[in-house]
Amino acid sequence: MNLKKLIRDVPDFPKQGVIFKDITPLLKNTKGFKSAINNMARKYSAKGGSACGGKDKKIDSIVSMESRGFIFGAALALKLGCGFVPIRKKGKLPYKTIQEEYQLEYGTDVLEIHEDAICKDDNILIVDDVLATGGTAKAVCSLIEKLGGKVAGLCFLIELSFLNPYEKLKGHEIFSLIKY
Amino acid sequence: MNLKKLIRDVPDFPKQGVIFKDITPLLKNTKGFKSAINNMARKYSAKGGSACGGKDKKIDSIVSMESRGFIFGAALALKLGCGFVPIRKKGKLPYKTIQEEYQLEYGTDVLEIHEDAICKDDNILIVDDVLATGGTAKAVCSLIEKLGGKVAGLCFLIELSFLNPYEKLKGHEIFSLIKY
Repeated sequence: MNLKKLIRDVPDFPKQGVIFKDITPLLKNTKGFKSAINNMARKYSAKGGSACGGKDKKIDSIVSMESRGFIFGAALALKLGCGFVPIRKKGKLPYKTIQEEYQLEYGTDVLEIHEDAICKDDNILIVDDVLATGGTAKAVCSLIEKLGGKVAGLCFLIELSFLNPYEKLKGHEIFSLIKY
Repeated sequence: MNLKKLIRDVPDFPKQGVIFKDITPLLKNTKGFKSAINNMARKYSAKGGSACGGKDKKIDSIVSMESRGFIFGAALALKLGCGFVPIRKKGKLPYKTIQEEYQLEYGTDVLEIHEDAICKDDNILIVDDVLATGGTAKAVCSLIEKLGGKVAGLCFLIELSFLNPYEKLKGHEIFSLIKY
């Protein structure tokens, strides 16, 4: 299935000159959404599941960033049979958290994770909709490692390769279904 | 499986005197998350799927509100084999939208949906993590109906029955896994 056909270009969003990759036509398309999750799932297996050919990473939990990351992370967690851990913007998680600041185009922002969300040596798969500069993903890696987890890999629906995200994420395995 | 045991009470969040129902222990628990989605899925079936005993609603798409709603909505859409449509806060969706204002404790907020997200006469299931006063859910019903869709039902992980949400949602079928 050609998933790229289900991504819509929206010019000048969120600002003049940017072409936004709109994933909502893919989400609305039953076969498209299912195909995306199945393609991601083929790459990984959950702890306790069987490690068949090509499935080399046994995942304890999937970690995703709000909001669109939750869509792919939660569905993939259900498919693989592993736990799901949300990472949110500052002040949104109710329990004790640790924080990580990351760079935006102008200024900084803060991500948080519950301090009991990850056990020591857990194999963690990071899932999000879009990999752009890699700044957010790098902050998420840092949060996971601070809690003693291991980043088993990073998985994205879309990768904006022209923004060179691999630079910031050296040493990590990255898997993207669609590349621009 | 007793899902209530996987919900954590966090006192004084988001403000003094409120006991927040924290769903993250359930999400992290592989069996807990899977059980929640399976229990929701038993109640509904997707269009094209077979309508077995107890499954009386054939769903075209699931509609969920950001952010936590995405977790249950997307996983359930994958499980049922239907489309997924996100509803977001103002200014977050990239394409043409319609809006609905809704009441908060102090002031109002605005929800948006893409104007091409729903086809006429689509059977829509609304999925969210928590049903509280019903204000948000009512706004979502209104958005769906404005686009010509039919609200086939509303499905929640948690219902705060003491806040009397049924009042605002008269005429709609509501299904909640956990009630307080």
